[in-house]
Amino acid sequence: MSSKPIYLGVIGVGGVGTAFLNQLARLPNAPSLVLLARSSQTLTSPAPAYSPAIPADWQTASANPSLTKSGPLSPPEIVSYLSSAPGRSVLVDNTSDPALASAYPLFLRAGISIVTPNKKAFSSDLSLWKDIFAAAAEGKALVYHESTVGAGLPVISTLRDLVATGDEVTRIEGVFSGTLSFLFNTFAPVSGSSSAKWSEVVTQAKQLGYTEPDPRDDLNGMDVARKLTILARIAGLEVQSPDSFPVESLIPAELASLPATPDGVSQFLARLPEFDGQMAALKEQAEKAGKVVRYVGSVDVGKKEVKVGLQQFDKDSAIAGLKGSDNIISFYTKRYGSNPLIIQGAGAGGDVTAMGVTADLIKVLERLQ
Amino acid sequence: MSSKPIYLGVIGVGGVGTAFLNQLARLPNAPSLVLLARSSQTLTSPAPAYSPAIPADWQTASANPSLTKSGPLSPPEIVSYLSSAPGRSVLVDNTSDPALASAYPLFLRAGISIVTPNKKAFSSDLSLWKDIFAAAAEGKALVYHESTVGAGLPVISTLRDLVATGDEVTRIEGVFSGTLSFLFNTFAPVSGSSSAKWSEVVTQAKQLGYTEPDPRDDLNGMDVARKLTILARIAGLEVQSPDSFPVESLIPAELASLPATPDGVSQFLARLPEFDGQMAALKEQAEKAGKVVRYVGSVDVGKKEVKVGLQQFDKDSAIAGLKGSDNIISFYTKRYGSNPLIIQGAGAGGDVTAMGVTADLIKVLERLQ
Repeated sequence: MSSKPIYLGVIGVGGVGTAFLNQLARLPNAPSLVLLARSSQTLTSPAPAYSPAIPADWQTASANPSLTKSGPLSPPEIVSYLSSAPGRSVLVDNTSDPALASAYPLFLRAGISIVTPNKKAFSSDLSLWKDIFAAAAEGKALVYHESTVGAGLPVISTLRDLVATGDEVTRIEGVFSGTLSFLFNTFAPVSGSSSAKWSEVVTQAKQLGYTEPDPRDDLNGMDVARKLTILARIAGLEVQSPDSFPVESLIPAELASLPATPDGVSQFLARLPEFDGQMAALKEQAEKAGKVVRYVGSVDVGKKEVKVGLQQFDKDSAIAGLKGSDNIISFYTKRYGSNPLIIQGAGAGGDVTAMGVTADLIKVLERLQ
Repeated sequence: MSSKPIYLGVIGVGGVGTAFLNQLARLPNAPSLVLLARSSQTLTSPAPAYSPAIPADWQTASANPSLTKSGPLSPPEIVSYLSSAPGRSVLVDNTSDPALASAYPLFLRAGISIVTPNKKAFSSDLSLWKDIFAAAAEGKALVYHESTVGAGLPVISTLRDLVATGDEVTRIEGVFSGTLSFLFNTFAPVSGSSSAKWSEVVTQAKQLGYTEPDPRDDLNGMDVARKLTILARIAGLEVQSPDSFPVESLIPAELASLPATPDGVSQFLARLPEFDGQMAALKEQAEKAGKVVRYVGSVDVGKKEVKVGLQQFDKDSAIAGLKGSDNIISFYTKRYGSNPLIIQGAGAGGDVTAMGVTADLIKVLERLQ
């Protein structure tokens, strides 16, 4: 509760990064921004004074002649710069860079706290997960990653509270991809009927900017698998990696090997209508049972089972009734009994993802002070 | 992040208090329990050593001859005892005592942090709310009160995160009473029809232990009004008191003045059937519009409007579809757009309420360390 100066490094100025910088600029008592980097360039406040602070806006910052400019710094170089600051420091990683993620233990052991929406560190090999939390347990720095699942929705914090207070989480289930939520809510709505073909819905989603540049990066289910890996690990399961459990890909096998180039993506979308019949059959099969088809992930803690893929849901279920690109996450626990604790809302988008990052940063600052 | 000893006082050993003590007993690195009180008796660890610690169980503790026993202590006496402990201290108030609640500023200014599910302090006169947060802002102690709304559901923390990160909360709406949720989910279910009369449902709920000993304490809407007062204040509205806005009471005017004695309660339940026709009419009116009636609270931040009472909802809405005694809280914000951030689940019960208290305590300990 004393007031020591805190120094902040921020990497990534994409959608989430820019939204975060906007929120940071409006934060009362914000820490001093001393490192701001995008993939090709790094701005730092000159050492040893670590002053002037960097304005929380890439355009303004990069035009400031008092700041030191360099190319991309390696993780050890960033560690060295931040850990030499005359106070505690925090790194906000707004990238999805696996190399930076695998250096988190290095940062934490050097006393640099980590706040990030980057799923890579927490959903890759189990050994990295263990190393990160072993490093944090040394007590020199903190790691917060709310926005790795459900963007700004309070998913990670709620699960951690359930576990920390001794509740027994038995099952976690939900829709974890805003993109796949939109695709199925549009393709197989609960009320009324949609005549849209699957390929049309995918193309429309891409045009609206709801998919990754290559929609196959959503359709392969790996983003959902990474989120489930994180939740399962917090719930106590030793999940080796996001490909160590069944993940149903929605990419037709015949189109999986098309190159990940703009041309490959065009070919993929051009050939996707060949498979509309398969998706229509899945939809009709569900309809005959009075249900709808949705792409979900689940963790059965008792059975140590994680899976990701299509499932049928009753039309009056919460999952079937989702709107737009909302996520929904249900926690079944011993204390909550038969009715789960449910969190629902936008699970993607720059502003809400950044909100989770900013809220985490506030908590880290409160604990470091 | 250093490790100073932390001393804990706990008041209240009712349903929530006992569940909390169970969770505390299982907490790794729990702080030292040095004061444990119920309404008629107080146990303390002998000063000046503040040792031995008190076992987290009233029966065991009260049989321990090494502890100091006394009658109820006044708030200033508790402040004096806890603030003289050889380390930081935290008071967990598991009562609904307004006198203790109005002493929170005293505790906070003496460096004693507060963790509580007691709504009184935060939902009574606005001046007490302001005094509490002014005292906390002096920086000597913290105040956490997640379980004052929605029990262990992450309602307060989510709203505070939205506000702190600069989102604009426009509207909050929901079902905030487990008791009233059960009553209306049973009286006017979405699917199928219920022939149960209102008075039968109320009597059944009382028999199941879902209501207060005097069901009028649920039916008057004041519990919901207190929760709305808290949320509205966090969202920035200066609500003077829980009776400064419209609250619809479900107690027939003719029965309001029956005494709050067991005999008065019996008379109330005996005469309630006289008013079944009124409730049936409300239900049928909604049904004709294809809707169901629910008891909800809402805050319109822009219009500075708080209200609590009956409203009709579409049968496919999330509020209409609630099950059992679940709560649901929807936050409409600028960042979340047209689809709100929704939290849903059990909003009453000893274990889940205590979970919110324990999770708050963990956060306070993390910040004090």
